[in-house]
Amino acid sequence: MGVTVAIDCMGGDHGPVVTVPAALSFLRSHPAVNAILVGREDVLAPLLGDALAGLGSRVRVHHASEVVGMDEPPAIAMRNKKDSSMRVAVDLVKAGEAAAAISAGNTGALMAISRFVLKTLPGIDRPAICSILPAVKGHTYVLDLGANVDCTAEHLLQFGIMGSMLVAAVDHIERPRVGLLNIGEEAIKGNEIVKQAGELLRGSGLNFCGNVEGNDIYMGSADVVVCDGFVGNVALKTSEGLAQMLSTFLREAFGRNIFTKLMALVALPVLKQFKHRVDHRRYNGAVLLGLRGVVVKSHGSADGFAFEQAIARAADAAGNQLIERISSKMASMSEAAA
Amino acid sequence: MGVTVAIDCMGGDHGPVVTVPAALSFLRSHPAVNAILVGREDVLAPLLGDALAGLGSRVRVHHASEVVGMDEPPAIAMRNKKDSSMRVAVDLVKAGEAAAAISAGNTGALMAISRFVLKTLPGIDRPAICSILPAVKGHTYVLDLGANVDCTAEHLLQFGIMGSMLVAAVDHIERPRVGLLNIGEEAIKGNEIVKQAGELLRGSGLNFCGNVEGNDIYMGSADVVVCDGFVGNVALKTSEGLAQMLSTFLREAFGRNIFTKLMALVALPVLKQFKHRVDHRRYNGAVLLGLRGVVVKSHGSADGFAFEQAIARAADAAGNQLIERISSKMASMSEAAA
Repeated sequence: MGVTVAIDCMGGDHGPVVTVPAALSFLRSHPAVNAILVGREDVLAPLLGDALAGLGSRVRVHHASEVVGMDEPPAIAMRNKKDSSMRVAVDLVKAGEAAAAISAGNTGALMAISRFVLKTLPGIDRPAICSILPAVKGHTYVLDLGANVDCTAEHLLQFGIMGSMLVAAVDHIERPRVGLLNIGEEAIKGNEIVKQAGELLRGSGLNFCGNVEGNDIYMGSADVVVCDGFVGNVALKTSEGLAQMLSTFLREAFGRNIFTKLMALVALPVLKQFKHRVDHRRYNGAVLLGLRGVVVKSHGSADGFAFEQAIARAADAAGNQLIERISSKMASMSEAAA
Repeated sequence: MGVTVAIDCMGGDHGPVVTVPAALSFLRSHPAVNAILVGREDVLAPLLGDALAGLGSRVRVHHASEVVGMDEPPAIAMRNKKDSSMRVAVDLVKAGEAAAAISAGNTGALMAISRFVLKTLPGIDRPAICSILPAVKGHTYVLDLGANVDCTAEHLLQFGIMGSMLVAAVDHIERPRVGLLNIGEEAIKGNEIVKQAGELLRGSGLNFCGNVEGNDIYMGSADVVVCDGFVGNVALKTSEGLAQMLSTFLREAFGRNIFTKLMALVALPVLKQFKHRVDHRRYNGAVLLGLRGVVVKSHGSADGFAFEQAIARAADAAGNQLIERISSKMASMSEAAA
């Protein structure tokens, strides 16, 4: 019983040294989840040690001879590496042996492979990448974050549906608030596509709360924020840059001299608590939505803790019928439209 | 001698109580700048006290009977309020009585009025809004931030030119590095317009350093970052939201109990230094670029210190021939193309 996940153990900046211990640690703390560790047997075996025995039939290694490079063009990875750990992990989902795949490998390749192998759900034109960001209150799901640079209003509507169903599955909020990312400038409230998307969302039966602005992502004004992949990617990367700059400045301020270093020492518990609250590792694990299977992308530079969050998200989405929820919402909408 | 600026003293969330003292304080510390304070004489006079005498002919009040509301539709403000302080300040630039106008009023109205009164420079299709953001190294000018939601590749090229000339004028960097905001996803490097804009910028004679991503804004990888107004506005607002969230979290972490409050007290000098470094007030003053005159928009909620920065930016741009620089670059480019 329980959910089985297929883990691409070779992907990411660090590869198996991080993914294997993270997978084992996750399995130990989540007895209802089983895992198939995908990758080169000769590389994975030594890292497993006697863990396989301890976890019994809940974990097994599935050999895959190739690895997709972090900078490899997606088309090449898809065409030439049919036995890559990434491809095999997704194949296992397709074959029904696993309910979800997790990879820290190259996003473009993972998206291309997932789309090719699993195909999109009925009514979904394009899959989207959905991440979670922290907010003053709770957290916010944002999509698309880079899979689709040119979106129609219909695509944005589909993102709204997929995001809502993800929140329903994972956060158990039955009618999540959906906001449409727009700009606040009085003169020109958004472009034509965004205006049309607003109309579609209003008539969708979703809990649409209208336009939101960039700052609303971090205020928690909506559970799901919908935007095209170009805008979403810029918002995400800009946030990463700002967070990095602020952390650099804070470190520099406390590191200036012996007195400021002492102050840092005194303030350590507070700084730690602050750091925990905004720890991006807790939010690791972007969901590739709209496919006939759950696929989760971990950040390439994820450490063990972060990688475990990505596994958790995948197991959670699969265990809470994410795919069925999206399918059934799409079906009911196409019935209503017919 | 010196630069004369026209200040809309009625605009902004606080109006004259903030703008008038800020203007006087600025004039006292900048003896080469003169100011025309625009607004209702009966409101401004009591705030001036005997400052007019002290500053001699360097400052005068220009009466304007109306005020543009912060939420007033730009078209209405433009059509119906010909004697608004905002309109009159821009009129003074048009008439040559001032070299620059500053307003903390509604952005849409200021853009509409400036465009109508001053017109765009030859070769410039659309004015853009350019702000400065802090970076790990130095700072970064970003445009457009919301004036244009649908941009062609040519518009993005023009933004690159205008931004470069602003940096040349204000920061005295003769060949500023210009980056094109794009997304890093391997599969799909930007949409068609951004790709074309890249080609145009490469052939422009500007110091084009290629694509940059959202995080580069805060890394200082380029002096000028060019994007369409929708993307730029989202990036800016997202940053504001994130900064606000982090500052809330930091305050909450230090405010939890008596011990953490004591830690905050100890760490106060460091926190102050950190706060100063990222103080958004220092970056106040967005430049409306591409017009036949310098117009600077202050944040509506600016306090006196922030409003002074906006005045400084306007005086600086006008004093360093911003308009002439843009005109001459546009002329040389159209000659080269002919």
